[in-house]
Amino acid sequence: MTLPPTGVYTPLPTFFKADDDYSLDIDTQLKHADYIHQAGVSGVLIGGSNGEAVNLTKKERHSIVKAVRERVDDSFVILAGTVGQSISDVVTDISELKALGANYAVILVPGYFANLTNQQGLIDWFTAIADKSLLPIIIYNYPGVQNGIDLTFDSYITLSQHPNIVGCKLTHYNFPLYTLLGQSQQLKDNNFRVLAGVGQVFLPGLSVGVEGCIDGLSNVFPKCMVQIWNLYSQGKLEEAQKLQALVTKVNEMTAVLNLLGLKYAIKHILGVGEVHGRPPLNQPIDLKVWEKYLPDFNELWAIEKSL
Amino acid sequence: MTLPPTGVYTPLPTFFKADDDYSLDIDTQLKHADYIHQAGVSGVLIGGSNGEAVNLTKKERHSIVKAVRERVDDSFVILAGTVGQSISDVVTDISELKALGANYAVILVPGYFANLTNQQGLIDWFTAIADKSLLPIIIYNYPGVQNGIDLTFDSYITLSQHPNIVGCKLTHYNFPLYTLLGQSQQLKDNNFRVLAGVGQVFLPGLSVGVEGCIDGLSNVFPKCMVQIWNLYSQGKLEEAQKLQALVTKVNEMTAVLNLLGLKYAIKHILGVGEVHGRPPLNQPIDLKVWEKYLPDFNELWAIEKSL
Amino acid sequence: MTLPPTGVYTPLPTFFKADDDYSLDIDTQLKHADYIHQAGVSGVLIGGSNGEAVNLTKKERHSIVKAVRERVDDSFVILAGTVGQSISDVVTDISELKALGANYAVILVPGYFANLTNQQGLIDWFTAIADKSLLPIIIYNYPGVQNGIDLTFDSYITLSQHPNIVGCKLTHYNFPLYTLLGQSQQLKDNNFRVLAGVGQVFLPGLSVGVEGCIDGLSNVFPKCMVQIWNLYSQGKLEEAQKLQALVTKVNEMTAVLNLLGLKYAIKHILGVGEVHGRPPLNQPIDLKVWEKYLPDFNELWAIEKSL
Amino acid sequence: MTLPPTGVYTPLPTFFKADDDYSLDIDTQLKHADYIHQAGVSGVLIGGSNGEAVNLTKKERHSIVKAVRERVDDSFVILAGTVGQSISDVVTDISELKALGANYAVILVPGYFANLTNQQGLIDWFTAIADKSLLPIIIYNYPGVQNGIDLTFDSYITLSQHPNIVGCKLTHYNFPLYTLLGQSQQLKDNNFRVLAGVGQVFLPGLSVGVEGCIDGLSNVFPKCMVQIWNLYSQGKLEEAQKLQALVTKVNEMTAVLNLLGLKYAIKHILGVGEVHGRPPLNQPIDLKVWEKYLPDFNELWAIEKSL
Repeated sequence: MTLPPTGVYTPLPTFFKADDDYSLDIDTQLKHADYIHQAGVSGVLIGGSNGEAVNLTKKERHSIVKAVRERVDDSFVILAGTVGQSISDVVTDISELKALGANYAVILVPGYFANLTNQQGLIDWFTAIADKSLLPIIIYNYPGVQNGIDLTFDSYITLSQHPNIVGCKLTHYNFPLYTLLGQSQQLKDNNFRVLAGVGQVFLPGLSVGVEGCIDGLSNVFPKCMVQIWNLYSQGKLEEAQKLQALVTKVNEMTAVLNLLGLKYAIKHILGVGEVHGRPPLNQPIDLKVWEKYLPDFNELWAIEKSL
Repeated sequence: MTLPPTGVYTPLPTFFKADDDYSLDIDTQLKHADYIHQAGVSGVLIGGSNGEAVNLTKKERHSIVKAVRERVDDSFVILAGTVGQSISDVVTDISELKALGANYAVILVPGYFANLTNQQGLIDWFTAIADKSLLPIIIYNYPGVQNGIDLTFDSYITLSQHPNIVGCKLTHYNFPLYTLLGQSQQLKDNNFRVLAGVGQVFLPGLSVGVEGCIDGLSNVFPKCMVQIWNLYSQGKLEEAQKLQALVTKVNEMTAVLNLLGLKYAIKHILGVGEVHGRPPLNQPIDLKVWEKYLPDFNELWAIEKSL
Repeated sequence: MTLPPTGVYTPLPTFFKADDDYSLDIDTQLKHADYIHQAGVSGVLIGGSNGEAVNLTKKERHSIVKAVRERVDDSFVILAGTVGQSISDVVTDISELKALGANYAVILVPGYFANLTNQQGLIDWFTAIADKSLLPIIIYNYPGVQNGIDLTFDSYITLSQHPNIVGCKLTHYNFPLYTLLGQSQQLKDNNFRVLAGVGQVFLPGLSVGVEGCIDGLSNVFPKCMVQIWNLYSQGKLEEAQKLQALVTKVNEMTAVLNLLGLKYAIKHILGVGEVHGRPPLNQPIDLKVWEKYLPDFNELWAIEKSL
Repeated sequence: MTLPPTGVYTPLPTFFKADDDYSLDIDTQLKHADYIHQAGVSGVLIGGSNGEAVNLTKKERHSIVKAVRERVDDSFVILAGTVGQSISDVVTDISELKALGANYAVILVPGYFANLTNQQGLIDWFTAIADKSLLPIIIYNYPGVQNGIDLTFDSYITLSQHPNIVGCKLTHYNFPLYTLLGQSQQLKDNNFRVLAGVGQVFLPGLSVGVEGCIDGLSNVFPKCMVQIWNLYSQGKLEEAQKLQALVTKVNEMTAVLNLLGLKYAIKHILGVGEVHGRPPLNQPIDLKVWEKYLPDFNELWAIEKSL
């Protein structure tokens, strides 16, 4: 199946109204989607961790995919996350996501039984899904939310041979793995794209052959993230370093406040959306953390506006 | 709502056929349920970790609840696990489980965003569910599969005040928490039952006021586990210690082989069921571990048969 | 060699003056040692974690052993911690500690290279030391300060066969291991004593055959800790539970404030000693934590005075 | 004090004879030191983790510094590790190391009480040592052997202001921190050098401004590691990537076998030295791991010989 384009992808948050059920706020969702769409990123991820996919019903998650798909032009890539580790459920989910217009399925490494799971089990699990998948699959490797589970380099090589598995999102700082994957000729030959899962390591990732990034901060600073990609591609390493340093600094804020910090920033900049997530993420953020990094935030925002 | 009875509960595995889809093996499921039912335990847990709930569709999980409910008499308690952390999904799940004849809902502490979640968020999450729950709720506290998340003693006290929250299953070895919960007059006053989630700590749990156990090993040795309860209740501490020591020894096997080791043991003893789980748990077990503890296993089995 | 007596041991903190070098405050050390000595505990541990052994020079650590030995009567047991994982250094340390009047050496499981260390390596390490040790050895198993390293049950059995290895201090909550060790006839035959390393799990430890406790809280409430032992020994389980529950509650304070919380409590009760440790432990404690548990502290203190 | 030179440093293993006491093998130590010295690295680290510093007496550790210093020319930089977290001991150690000809002291972040230690405590600890230090200090940040303790970016900024603190060795994969430190103008102004602590991330480190590497693999492939530095410095990014990829591949072997794998490799290549460490590291290595990476090893060795 098709290789996902290189570059920057934005993992959209899910916006909730301030009512009793924290119901979906599709209006804000679309306003924010417009903002991202116009900024020149390669696409968006809907139903990832940033989107609180696990806090949504499948119907809600699908309704966001549908709404965004109808809003943006057809060439704009939509990566869609699945939820859960029932093979049958994931396969059905993928079929439905394809019908709604998603272009790729982003599938989390199953980690509920992390201590009891070996690499062959993970390979079998992904293979069973890929065999029946109607969408090309991007493996989502995020040990931080999956009890520390990880795929090894050897497992990536094996899985990359499946025609329906076309890439991975690395949400961790295991740079030896970034390097092994980013430099692997076998992966290239197998039509497999390596993407970083966090923007704070975009540049060092690029330096070892990673070809893109699915980055939370691009919800606020999409052009800056694309600019790191452009500067690096043009060989302007020093400028890329400076911009990356500022991005990493601002990401120190989201390292603590996470998706709630991003929502706060979106409201701060675009004036839309509630800051809270759904329970258990319905809690107020620590504004001291926000304020600490506000000067860096403002400096990055000035650059964003200039691009 | 009603407090769950004291004593031993058996967390049933889910049996799968050796076909391509690892489809449900309801025949074996019911044969094994009969074995447990006749042994005198207080009830069973369907759809817990042992049952690979996360590897099933909701329909499959519900079909097991239905089949077991129809097989056993009405007084036999069925605890039913829910899956996922979408509040709306869990509430719906509970209603359906009640309709199928489950007596209690066992709900895992939501840990996907463990690093971003505070105690108030957990309290709000459980409260939102309990407010609409048609079944009494048992909180399932298993940090090992939920990125290390934990409820504090204070949070338990708060949640125990909700009329629909009636107990907890502690699947960890945090014995200060066992002690605080087991000895709390407030919890007793609030109609809240503290259950251990693993049998290898049943006796020390009893010694600080825990009043029961949901234990994997009771899938094979239900009478032995009930016997620990009986011996302790009768003040025969020394005999209880001896039996607990043997149980803990055999549990060293399941500490490594986990639910697959239990299935192997069930096949070994009852002659039914396949050993594998669903991918990623479709892998062969390490028989050296089994053989190491086989003498202890046989010793415990001789006791089981004598009871 | 001789088996250590059963019962309660107090791991003494090291007191420092409020001068630039945080120099030893032997006066306070001895006043506090008197308090403990008169309370009826089985002995003390000098140079353990509570004593900030790693923050002292060997000369300083030895000077405390010497001072306390001269102050208390000869029958009062002194356990003395060694520091570091150089075999030669530990052997020398033990000889010197014996000359100073220590009765047992308490030796931490070496965990610097935790990821690279296997059980046979640990067995060889302890054996090399035990072969030349002039004091009976108590194995100090504290994974929390040693990068998570642990000895298995099998390793304990092997090490217990050495005539110079006579016991262990379990500073963790691994209750299956407590049970296996506490109930092992082989360990009893090999002259090996199992001691809990924290008082918050004293009673559940006793319930599975642990025969004593080296507990920080006994620095403040020595008689209460001995009382748990006495009540349990007399079969007064319910009274033991009530006292344990209160001890565990107060230990929630030290779970956060650790040895600094103990020093604060000693100053609060006995009016002696500075609260700070040596850098990096020279920081003020969070008094909100102290205040939260003050009512429980006062309740326990009333019991202490009544004993 | 003086900033350490940029480039590659080799953290020497300590060689032990195959006698009962695993006594020092100074002959092999010097043969290997010659090999490294002639290869053009910037210097060596003696008494680091690779050198099993914690398994040596101070006298032994110092004897290696002395022997190597006398063997190599005066301009060859020797970084010398200290051991332990007693401030007084570390200060004395530094003075003695200076007298033996060491150029820099490499001091591990103190992590025994990791859970109880805050950043100000760490700052105070390093400051107390730096105030009296006769050598310039390199902070050694290795959470993997120190119960996970870490210094924050803010703490590095504070400590860099001390005239005697001149750099850090980052032995982890926290790339946001690499980026913040590597790009910090304040650190440059404060005369502070950022070095990576492992070679498998050398190139991505360079891409964000890290200026050198203390790398275990340079014990075998010193010229290859220097070559990565040279290629990057000359703007030959693609060639640097290819070489880094191979280095990272071979480091997958040392990721498992660690310093014992390095000793095996040294014996394999140079024909000198025993493979074992001191207990608990006296165990045989898993040769399957070695053999798995042998083709990559041979490919890298061919490059080494060609340089």
